[in-house]
Amino acid sequence: MKSSGLRIDRRSRVPLHRQLYDRIRGAIETGVLKPGERLASARSLAAQLDVARGTVDAAFSRLAGEGYVVMRGPRGTLVAPDFRARRPPRRSTSLRADTVPSSHSTALPLQLGLPALDLFPRKLWARIAARQARALAGAALAYPDPAGLPALREAVAGYLAVSRGVIASPEAIVITSGYQGALSLVTALALNRGDRIWFENPGYRIARDALAAQGFGLVPVPVDGEGLMVGEAKRRAPRARLAVVTPAHQSPLGVTLSFPRRQALLDWALGREAWILEDDYDSEFHYSGHKPPALKSLDAADRVFYAGSFSKSLFPGLRLGYLVVPARFGADAARLCRQRHRGHSVLDQAVASAFIAEGHFARHLRRMRLAYRARRDALSRALRARFEGRIALASAQGGLHVLARWDGLRSDKVAAAKALVLGLKPAALSDLFLGFTADQGLLMSFTNVAEKDAPAIVRRLARALE
Amino acid sequence: MKSSGLRIDRRSRVPLHRQLYDRIRGAIETGVLKPGERLASARSLAAQLDVARGTVDAAFSRLAGEGYVVMRGPRGTLVAPDFRARRPPRRSTSLRADTVPSSHSTALPLQLGLPALDLFPRKLWARIAARQARALAGAALAYPDPAGLPALREAVAGYLAVSRGVIASPEAIVITSGYQGALSLVTALALNRGDRIWFENPGYRIARDALAAQGFGLVPVPVDGEGLMVGEAKRRAPRARLAVVTPAHQSPLGVTLSFPRRQALLDWALGREAWILEDDYDSEFHYSGHKPPALKSLDAADRVFYAGSFSKSLFPGLRLGYLVVPARFGADAARLCRQRHRGHSVLDQAVASAFIAEGHFARHLRRMRLAYRARRDALSRALRARFEGRIALASAQGGLHVLARWDGLRSDKVAAAKALVLGLKPAALSDLFLGFTADQGLLMSFTNVAEKDAPAIVRRLARALE
Repeated sequence: MKSSGLRIDRRSRVPLHRQLYDRIRGAIETGVLKPGERLASARSLAAQLDVARGTVDAAFSRLAGEGYVVMRGPRGTLVAPDFRARRPPRRSTSLRADTVPSSHSTALPLQLGLPALDLFPRKLWARIAARQARALAGAALAYPDPAGLPALREAVAGYLAVSRGVIASPEAIVITSGYQGALSLVTALALNRGDRIWFENPGYRIARDALAAQGFGLVPVPVDGEGLMVGEAKRRAPRARLAVVTPAHQSPLGVTLSFPRRQALLDWALGREAWILEDDYDSEFHYSGHKPPALKSLDAADRVFYAGSFSKSLFPGLRLGYLVVPARFGADAARLCRQRHRGHSVLDQAVASAFIAEGHFARHLRRMRLAYRARRDALSRALRARFEGRIALASAQGGLHVLARWDGLRSDKVAAAKALVLGLKPAALSDLFLGFTADQGLLMSFTNVAEKDAPAIVRRLARALE
Repeated sequence: MKSSGLRIDRRSRVPLHRQLYDRIRGAIETGVLKPGERLASARSLAAQLDVARGTVDAAFSRLAGEGYVVMRGPRGTLVAPDFRARRPPRRSTSLRADTVPSSHSTALPLQLGLPALDLFPRKLWARIAARQARALAGAALAYPDPAGLPALREAVAGYLAVSRGVIASPEAIVITSGYQGALSLVTALALNRGDRIWFENPGYRIARDALAAQGFGLVPVPVDGEGLMVGEAKRRAPRARLAVVTPAHQSPLGVTLSFPRRQALLDWALGREAWILEDDYDSEFHYSGHKPPALKSLDAADRVFYAGSFSKSLFPGLRLGYLVVPARFGADAARLCRQRHRGHSVLDQAVASAFIAEGHFARHLRRMRLAYRARRDALSRALRARFEGRIALASAQGGLHVLARWDGLRSDKVAAAKALVLGLKPAALSDLFLGFTADQGLLMSFTNVAEKDAPAIVRRLARALE
């Protein structure tokens, strides 16, 4: 039992739970805390540091969620026995060797947020990359348009018009560093420090952390079968300046925002001169029934920022996404792009625009829809077979994960941490709530679970749940 | 004479001069204002909009500096006759065709901030890119380490140790979106809103604009033959929280920060618990005498953020740079990278790391040093020959531009604008000062002036100066 000289800074703007998380993580990564080593109990650590017990719990559960520690209930919290400290890799020139597993790059079965890494048409991509790299010459080597390569913005405009009913001129589209880049652009454009934001509860954790770290007041808004409860949101914080929503398939519950709710949301934004950020999360992947339209396609008053990402429709390492910006913010968005990063990789942008313009993107999405449906079905079948009668699967018609709830599941966080020790990475539903929740379950991405492997993976999961 | 229904918003946080700049620029880009069309005079525009004359002047001179308008003195201000409105390009898959000249991507002779676009070893780069693209598979497609690909951080660590005397572990190095990315990371880590910053006067315009836009108080500090006048800075703002400096070759004057000033700067930072951002700008290119060491190499107390960029040592379209982060900020920097962009292009990072690790980078820099020295000498010779006795060239031993001052030059801004009409893009020295200056001159990059073309380009420049 050891606290490794942990120190926290009460004057810092960094929340205490995050300071604690950073310190413990640092100690693990640098080997100060060794795999299998037991940490001080949350209670004694809280006493020692004179912080609330909840502060320590928050740090511990994030560490557990990210695989740094394993929570063993009454037996305490251990540094994950399988944790390998990150060491500087040997000098090497192959990308494959460069990306030795780290806490960031490991892709484990059931892990959320990744496309099927085995099905990406990488040879085709490499061929286009080679061609575009050869064409890099003269002015094409210079600073790109900070808001995005014109060809890529045009390709995205075409895709959005055809697939999402979003009519935007290429000039209204800004290329971003994935959804994170879109999020920080939207807050810089539309918000003032301390403004309040409606945020789905449960919701997308990475967005929530980023917004909270920027000092905005997050107003958790419950989600029911019709999506974000707009009436409840208006009751709780009518003067919020921004609503962040995932209308197509709510993240993580998978429900679609109903038409009346969409209308209510747009009316609120118009009436209050507030803004909406539509994260059109996983809308590319819908398997049955009508594909839900984009909220932006109804946005006559131009109050909606529309964000999409290539992280799952292509691959995350590309780090490219797009944001449709209301006309009023056009010039400011271009200025911010100039000041913050002066644009993104010309090579990647050229490859992506060619991939779209030549029709590969549409074909890739069609193929992936079939593959994902098959993987979803296989994983769902295996789960139902193994946990017959004790499991409820949320029957989302789209998206890239299943949500399972078990009768008598005591702690989804503990279950997720145990699964991680067995090499699986489901996410705990309760982790995605702001504040207390009794809703427990596991979110499991099926993207990297081949159909034939589903039964074995479910067997492993069952061991973690025992 | 026309003001195109310009409107400004007095309640906006955007400064009036920038609003004005944005509106006029927008009107030009969308074709509302046509090439050659005359704008309302600054005086009448100021009266019409009820703003200070200086506000309009500031907007006009930025528009002139960026080539949108041409200031013709008593004949008024015109939309640049050679301005071509940006149109959405035709659907196209070739990168070359994608990057039709725009205000951002055009590379004109004498333009600052670009490497020699004709001498980049693009075939070698394309070969490595093709190889790395083929190796993109499995976990390498997933989210990269947000702080940078380990192999690239290691390659940069090796380069910095050998070439700049900067000893940093790969873990202390963060890969950024060029210098802009480093700048916004440093301010987020080390500053609070409204903090004051020592800034070289004259200084790097893009950094200045980015810092001012973030709401920091810029304290202009004069630069003499020994670089930033540290004593003067301490007198003006002893409580500043950050000093942004270009010690190797001051941007734009080219002087090297002297050893006593370096020591004074480090002592100030240590004593005041303030921070220093060293922009090791163009340090790769030094042509005679000892190469000035990095300030960071003297930084025993770990108060210096050290920033470098591949924009000139490789090419700007790569959008990659690096930042050595003091140990105290390590965990926070990683967190910010996760929240803001979740990393950069894996392909570009893999190509850059292979290029460095295989020795191409060192060879490329050696070759470019020779080529740049020859281009610098050719342009200097041509300038001296054409303007015999009336010109003074600052004799910098490094960097990528020459600074010329002429006897009797009335307005360097007018000269720069006239040169732009003739297809040249020198920069006006007076534009790089905060506040009034009598110092006038033209900054001319020699990177894209082949030796044989120097005399013809100088003849064209002479016409602009007539």
